[in-house]
Amino acid sequence: MKLQPKDTIAALATPVGEGGLAIIRISGPAAVTIADKVFRGKQPLRDAPGFTVHYGTIYTTRSEMVDQVLATVFRAPHSYTGEDAVEFSCHGGMLVSHRVLESVLEAGARQSEPGEYTRRAFLNGRMDLSQAEAVADLIAARSHRAHLSSLEQLEGKLAGRIAELKAKLMDLCSLLEVDLDFSEEGIELISKQSIAEKIEDSVATISRMVASFEVGRVYREGVTVALVGRPNAGKSSIFNALLQESRAIVTPVPGTTRDLLEENLTIGGILFRISDTAGLREPTDVVETEGLKRSKAALQRGDILVLVVDATEKLPVAECLADLGEVLPGRRVVVAYNKIDLLGECLTGPTDFMAHGIQGMAVRVSAKNGQGIDTLRRCLVGLAVGPNRGQEGSLYITNRRHWESLKKAKVSLELAIGSLSSGRTNEFVAFDVREATEFLAEITGEVTSEDVINHIFARFCVGK
Amino acid sequence: MKLQPKDTIAALATPVGEGGLAIIRISGPAAVTIADKVFRGKQPLRDAPGFTVHYGTIYTTRSEMVDQVLATVFRAPHSYTGEDAVEFSCHGGMLVSHRVLESVLEAGARQSEPGEYTRRAFLNGRMDLSQAEAVADLIAARSHRAHLSSLEQLEGKLAGRIAELKAKLMDLCSLLEVDLDFSEEGIELISKQSIAEKIEDSVATISRMVASFEVGRVYREGVTVALVGRPNAGKSSIFNALLQESRAIVTPVPGTTRDLLEENLTIGGILFRISDTAGLREPTDVVETEGLKRSKAALQRGDILVLVVDATEKLPVAECLADLGEVLPGRRVVVAYNKIDLLGECLTGPTDFMAHGIQGMAVRVSAKNGQGIDTLRRCLVGLAVGPNRGQEGSLYITNRRHWESLKKAKVSLELAIGSLSSGRTNEFVAFDVREATEFLAEITGEVTSEDVINHIFARFCVGK
Repeated sequence: MKLQPKDTIAALATPVGEGGLAIIRISGPAAVTIADKVFRGKQPLRDAPGFTVHYGTIYTTRSEMVDQVLATVFRAPHSYTGEDAVEFSCHGGMLVSHRVLESVLEAGARQSEPGEYTRRAFLNGRMDLSQAEAVADLIAARSHRAHLSSLEQLEGKLAGRIAELKAKLMDLCSLLEVDLDFSEEGIELISKQSIAEKIEDSVATISRMVASFEVGRVYREGVTVALVGRPNAGKSSIFNALLQESRAIVTPVPGTTRDLLEENLTIGGILFRISDTAGLREPTDVVETEGLKRSKAALQRGDILVLVVDATEKLPVAECLADLGEVLPGRRVVVAYNKIDLLGECLTGPTDFMAHGIQGMAVRVSAKNGQGIDTLRRCLVGLAVGPNRGQEGSLYITNRRHWESLKKAKVSLELAIGSLSSGRTNEFVAFDVREATEFLAEITGEVTSEDVINHIFARFCVGK
Repeated sequence: MKLQPKDTIAALATPVGEGGLAIIRISGPAAVTIADKVFRGKQPLRDAPGFTVHYGTIYTTRSEMVDQVLATVFRAPHSYTGEDAVEFSCHGGMLVSHRVLESVLEAGARQSEPGEYTRRAFLNGRMDLSQAEAVADLIAARSHRAHLSSLEQLEGKLAGRIAELKAKLMDLCSLLEVDLDFSEEGIELISKQSIAEKIEDSVATISRMVASFEVGRVYREGVTVALVGRPNAGKSSIFNALLQESRAIVTPVPGTTRDLLEENLTIGGILFRISDTAGLREPTDVVETEGLKRSKAALQRGDILVLVVDATEKLPVAECLADLGEVLPGRRVVVAYNKIDLLGECLTGPTDFMAHGIQGMAVRVSAKNGQGIDTLRRCLVGLAVGPNRGQEGSLYITNRRHWESLKKAKVSLELAIGSLSSGRTNEFVAFDVREATEFLAEITGEVTSEDVINHIFARFCVGK
């Protein structure tokens, strides 16, 4: 880990494409000097204070005019990276923004690597590792929940909680070590009972955080839902009925939909990726074989399965479920009895369904007249977040890396409790407690391997 | 035309997509007030001077946190639009930038229409119409030449030239009108000869500008090239050979290539859209029929045709050209005798080819070893810009609208010369000269219909 990057980096910080504006970002010790080599305004930028904006023209080092821009100057340490920085706001064309960047590179900046700006912000102490990860999550956020949890993490909510936990455990360590000195003289400064309570208190906190990942993961990554069932059960109609009232996701941007049969929608702020599958039946030709193959893949991928059953066929529950066969065990399932507009009542209900030991629910719907579709939506949210859905404003662990570190910290603390109850000396207890604090420090990046850090920043875009 | 827009507009000004940063732009009398409804920083923006940057957090009007941003404040008239303006630089995620915009709209801004910022800049006298058009051209520019000519137009080069021309003609009008008063007393202030010379001087300037459109259009829009020829003549090999050494266009962005058989490349700063077509021969099945249909369409579209001929077949020129049949008349053609690596010399050369009265050239190439490919490139540039290619730094008319107005101005001036030589009074001459100035004023937007202005701004993106 290079702690003091000496070179100056540059990149296009805005999305690639055509728009009104594009930003070229320069950061590093020579940012202002390099900017002045290509920028001609009323005055050179070298005399400009931070947080000021200047109008001027970009020229290449060969004095070819490139664009009219606004230059914003930032002075270390008051910038995103903590270094001197300049941002050129230029016209948002692909060629023109590329040429501005090219001019800056020719003037001595190096093209930045993915995430290099945020990495520098981390290395310069402008944010901890969990906040740096939150930047990438915030940019990738596709749902209200993902947005909110990444923003809270960026604001330092997780970092604060970890710091609190760590401080408590470090205090305990100090106490244990001091106690060790005294214990040689037969004096006990702190009772075993009291030590155990302190550790157990931290274990309880960590356990809650570990458990919150079940929901936090869903908030961050969303949930995949596969609509399955026999041909003509009404899968596609339910698919459309679900989508129709979905709150718009972000913007009508290409790439939101991943293929013809998969759509994103948000319900209760959670992103659901819903795929409509081909009907489950013996294929009769090559096209149907391919369709069935894809349906089965969607079934395997689906966090939640919506089994669409034609209620008018009045099949017993067992027969409905039989279609899911091998994929069923441990899966979350909603059985949607469709076409209830054609049928006064349903033969099978939630109770019958639960009797089959499935983790799931059953709803009566009519894709045709919309009856029950809202209930189906609520079922999806319920199955997505499970019974652990917490209070508004509580902290969720959304990141697998944090979750893993917390689990390791918990194991260390449990070992400490074990040592304590088996009568080993405080030396052993302190060792495990200290180890727990190190696992916690992995989350904020105080002790994190270069490999892990490289991995984290590799998922960033180039201009961040 | 609403001359004083009273409302405040907002839009995403950066391209849609994921990136490090996105800019939400607010402009109008209430820009700062609206920004302060969603922005919480150290101090409200209302006290901030123009060209300053402020760190803070965006909250919705319901106090939900949305993002950490930098806000740049601009004070009328020192902004792009000439109005008060605020730009929020937020995280470049699709959802997060959308939510920042949504918050601003909820706080009272109106979503801007395409080109509305630049339209306001025009209405507020920050730029003339030709400069406003240059903004759209600059953003759309895909080649060095398109970039340069739009930038020069944005800098006011065309506007300046038009103003010069207009001033000269207006002076002449005044002189003619004063002369009219005196002529009643039998005094001639200015000789007919001198008037004619002044008008002819302007006609000559305008004629050069009109003629420059042939090249200017190519600079702005690029040139389409269709590779045609019999199957196995080596069209695709030449296509690849041309592309291989092409200077990269802009960035590896989806959308640059328009279909599997069409590629963009720049040669000499000019954008060429080169399409490889299916071989010309009688189709034997439905796929070949479709291929031939598309080839013929590409032939019709192509500004330049590259007829690829297998030199080893030693066909006479007439037979080579016969394939082009009906599309040939008036077209610019390069005959590329391919496979000269297999053949010591060519039976037919440029001279034979010219003898057939074609506007074009012939080159001997080998797609295999690259021989002659550079010459082919030079031929393409030569045919694209024709003999009128001017000096580096001269002004090119790139926009059809400007070209039309200039042609009309020229006609008016020629009428004036006609009136003069047929001995009509200066009143008639002055009328036509004045009309010419009005056609020139259309270019800069001093007298331009609302319809034309609407049409111009409709091609802009929403955030510009």
